[in-house]
Amino acid sequence: MALALSLGRRGLGQTWPNPAVGCVLVRDGRLLARGWTQPGGRPHAEAMAIAAAEDCTGATAYVSLEPCAHTGQTPPCAQALIEAGVSRVVVALGDPDPRVAGKGLAMLREAGIEVTTRVLEADARDDQQGFLSRVTQGRPMVTLKLASSFDGRIATASGESQWITGPAARQAVQALRASHDAVMVGGNTAREDLPALTLRTMSERRPPVRIVVSRELQLPRMGPLAEDDSGAPVWLLHGLDVADDARAFWNARGSELIEVPKDDTGLDMASALQALGARGITRLLCEGGGLLAASLLRAGLVDRVVGFTAGVMLGGDGLPSLAPLGITALSDAPRFALKEVTRVGPDIAHVWTRT
Amino acid sequence: MALALSLGRRGLGQTWPNPAVGCVLVRDGRLLARGWTQPGGRPHAEAMAIAAAEDCTGATAYVSLEPCAHTGQTPPCAQALIEAGVSRVVVALGDPDPRVAGKGLAMLREAGIEVTTRVLEADARDDQQGFLSRVTQGRPMVTLKLASSFDGRIATASGESQWITGPAARQAVQALRASHDAVMVGGNTAREDLPALTLRTMSERRPPVRIVVSRELQLPRMGPLAEDDSGAPVWLLHGLDVADDARAFWNARGSELIEVPKDDTGLDMASALQALGARGITRLLCEGGGLLAASLLRAGLVDRVVGFTAGVMLGGDGLPSLAPLGITALSDAPRFALKEVTRVGPDIAHVWTRT
Ligand SMILES: NC(=O)c1ccc[n+]([C@@H]2O[C@H](COP(=O)([O-])OP(=O)(O)OC[C@H]3O[C@@H](n4cnc5c(N)ncnc54)[C@H](OP(=O)(O)O)[C@@H]3O)[C@@H](O)[C@H]2O)c1
Ligand SMILES: NC(=O)c1ccc[n+]([C@@H]2O[C@H](COP(=O)([O-])OP(=O)(O)OC[C@H]3O[C@@H](n4cnc5c(N)ncnc54)[C@H](OP(=O)(O)O)[C@@H]3O)[C@@H](O)[C@H]2O)c1
Repeated sequence: MALALSLGRRGLGQTWPNPAVGCVLVRDGRLLARGWTQPGGRPHAEAMAIAAAEDCTGATAYVSLEPCAHTGQTPPCAQALIEAGVSRVVVALGDPDPRVAGKGLAMLREAGIEVTTRVLEADARDDQQGFLSRVTQGRPMVTLKLASSFDGRIATASGESQWITGPAARQAVQALRASHDAVMVGGNTAREDLPALTLRTMSERRPPVRIVVSRELQLPRMGPLAEDDSGAPVWLLHGLDVADDARAFWNARGSELIEVPKDDTGLDMASALQALGARGITRLLCEGGGLLAASLLRAGLVDRVVGFTAGVMLGGDGLPSLAPLGITALSDAPRFALKEVTRVGPDIAHVWTRT
Repeated sequence: MALALSLGRRGLGQTWPNPAVGCVLVRDGRLLARGWTQPGGRPHAEAMAIAAAEDCTGATAYVSLEPCAHTGQTPPCAQALIEAGVSRVVVALGDPDPRVAGKGLAMLREAGIEVTTRVLEADARDDQQGFLSRVTQGRPMVTLKLASSFDGRIATASGESQWITGPAARQAVQALRASHDAVMVGGNTAREDLPALTLRTMSERRPPVRIVVSRELQLPRMGPLAEDDSGAPVWLLHGLDVADDARAFWNARGSELIEVPKDDTGLDMASALQALGARGITRLLCEGGGLLAASLLRAGLVDRVVGFTAGVMLGGDGLPSLAPLGITALSDAPRFALKEVTRVGPDIAHVWTRT
């Protein structure tokens, strides 16, 4: 199952709107075949593994998520496993999608297949956090990434932000992007940094959708987001009041314009994330800046935080990694639990999850 | 030698103004005795080890710092080793103190003892950083400790700062205090937090000197610094203009008042550290706040930084861990190299040294 889980993780960021699943076929202690959900979400992991094995009769299938039972664009995987003649199916996590939810397992059992569930379930739940969030809450899982100085600054007083962290941390950000369905920044970051938000390395991977949050889409019409031909989609979350020329420019560029209601500080981020969920996004990486990060935190919409910290001191006149949150009592402050901390080149990387 | 070094480290923070040294006596592969500089700086490591061994004839002595050659309050250790009849001395680091500097080694060689030097020298240099700093620059080594939220804040907008980090990090701060000769805070921290700056655990250790930096000594006359009987000395670094009543109060309390020249932002910290060096302090721990930390950094007086980071978000309206540094270009910002990063309870601890 550990192998099935790790195969499944290969698909993270690649398979949306479908979950990234892994499947291993074993018989008499021998590995017959491996499969994982392919970029775009098809073929499914089970189908790939079955196709790769010469003969699965009597085999055990280890699958990281309950096999599907409904006919979508592909025939149901539960059916495929039955037809392939497997005698046992071991599943890590039940599928909460109401179209599946237990039906896949029931189909297998009815066909006389021995079914074991909840093997390494907690790990599978971690891997499927984006998929689960979309199915149960209608919004993607949100990872907030912040690269800052020792004292929590993301730019000097004069706005210099490249490069606070080193090449290894930037490479780790590339990997983060590749494992998310979409990357999102605030309007100021789009205006000041003209970021590309693409995969510079790992170009064989499906690139994440690039999302900018900006009420009136007063955004630069130059730079990679406006001009490149990287093939990475650009989606713009905006409010009611967008000037016709801005609308026309971005439409002509092939960007998707998504209207979202406003709140006091900007676009209502809860609605914005629902709109992304509705379009299939399961894993969203927010790369700042401080205003957008603060809005997401205030609304309780951040599931994971990834920090990169450099050994450089920028001081209190530098730009804070988070805008004001209006917290007075420490007990009201959003808390996250440490999951992992490592050295990346000269910097540290730390991953926290919501408590 | 690794054992001698680790014995020596037991004395860090305990032996000032003397260096914390470790000594191991070995004969025929058998450990005869161990010694380390005792609290207050005497007996020296070598004397302790010699006294503990029944007979050192023909033994090898591993010493983390060159044995002393001058008669101070104790007879020279080089002489003691000769008289004890050791046949070989292995030394990690030469003593830069002009009263010793090579003379200890020369004495040993003249007596026909085989001398090997520079064994694990880099480690010894690390351990002796405070002693070396005082001898070569006249000031203690400075460790800056900052405990902050994920986003680099040391208090909420309303000034709440206890407890951002958890019990394990606070315990680690106790260990940091115990391994430094003195602990220093700025006037605002003394006024707002009424800190004790004592060793709450490890009470068998020699407590660090408690130092407050305040121009006019307008400090609260209550709280542990003003009232406790912990036995930990209080030293006050101040400017020219101290009101008579303040001077009288702190003198009566038994505090040491140390006058230091001023610069634009407050007391001139380079002079302040020279004054501490002159009084024997080799290892100084600065526990904030943000203004004092920024002054030390601006003056290039910080040798090590120890960060504790909690998974809590305080936002841009919280108190920054460092006051403005006036840095515009990233290339001008003080840089530190990562030495160590670990988990401490729910928080992370990271140690950086000056590059
Ligand atoms: N080191 C790093 O990791 C890193 C990462 C990113 C950015 N940065 C730096 O951060 C700076 C920009 O950050 P920033 O904090 O000024 O701005 P930001 O978060 O990038 O963008 C804020 C803008 O997004 C739009 N917006 C719409 N709805 C919003 C909402 N609900 N909440 C917040 N914003 C909303 C608004 O622009 P409209 O008026 O267009 O609606 C708002 O002004 C740049 O200097 C950049 O270099 C550093
Ligand atoms: N989480 C943590 O690790 C931590 C640690 C410490 C403090 N804190 C918090 O930090 C806050 C206090 O920090 P702060 O930044 O306001 O003040 P601070 O650094 O504690 O004290 C600054 C004061 O020190 C005196 N000073 C004298 N010479 C100075 C110089 N060269 N540079 C700087 N200061 C000099 C001045 O007071 P005079 O007018 O008396 O000369 C100055 O106002 C408190 O809220 C405290 O709770 C948190």
